Amino acid sequence: MTIELSPDLQAMLKDKTELIPAIAQDAATGEVLMLAYMNQESLAITIESGRATYWSRSRDELWEKGATSGHTQKVISIALDCDGDALLLRVEQIGAACHTGDHTCFHREIESHKL
Amino acid sequence: MTIELSPDLQAMLKDKTELIPAIAQDAATGEVLMLAYMNQESLAITIESGRATYWSRSRDELWEKGATSGHTQKVISIALDCDGDALLLRVEQIGAACHTGDHTCFHREIESHKL
Repeated sequence: MTIELSPDLQAMLKDKTELIPAIAQDAATGEVLMLAYMNQESLAITIESGRATYWSRSRDELWEKGATSGHTQKVISIALDCDGDALLLRVEQIGAACHTGDHTCFHREIESHKL
Repeated sequence: MTIELSPDLQAMLKDKTELIPAIAQDAATGEVLMLAYMNQESLAITIESGRATYWSRSRDELWEKGATSGHTQKVISIALDCDGDALLLRVEQIGAACHTGDHTCFHREIESHKL
């Protein structure tokens, strides 16, 4: 059985077939955790299950974040951007988001100035 | 004259030719503002100038954010993700990030739960 997006939501997407970059942000701290990709089915599953599910470009399959590591993401909110080609998920991250064990995948700073 | 990335930084990128999704986050509030794309040159210019410069996929050209609207992004920090195919820019956003006048491009919530 394939879970489908509602027609209303489908209509909000800029492109029906392209993968959509999805930003995961820690809902409690605001820290940006990772960027992954979703297709329509993974977005529908994420909404249905409340757990972030992406499309793995390397394995070419649905990928429920944390299914093997236990480092799941409980979805607090999902927002679509103004032109319908990017997603922002605010999540409750269990354990580390990054496979390196770091809390965020963005742990390599290449430039830094004072605010 | 083309501005180039340092060899060290070039070596950190997963792919030398593909566009890299770049997340802009408000450095003061943590709010995620937008997602755009960079090529190597736009990243080099961003580092050099301290102002976020992207690659416009629709116009197929370099795009200094705010060059026409005045809604520029002063770069506070740049981080590369663990596998070198996504960027996180923490910025000081002047005015609205979104062309709609909203502070963030992610103003359309499609799902929401209590934290």
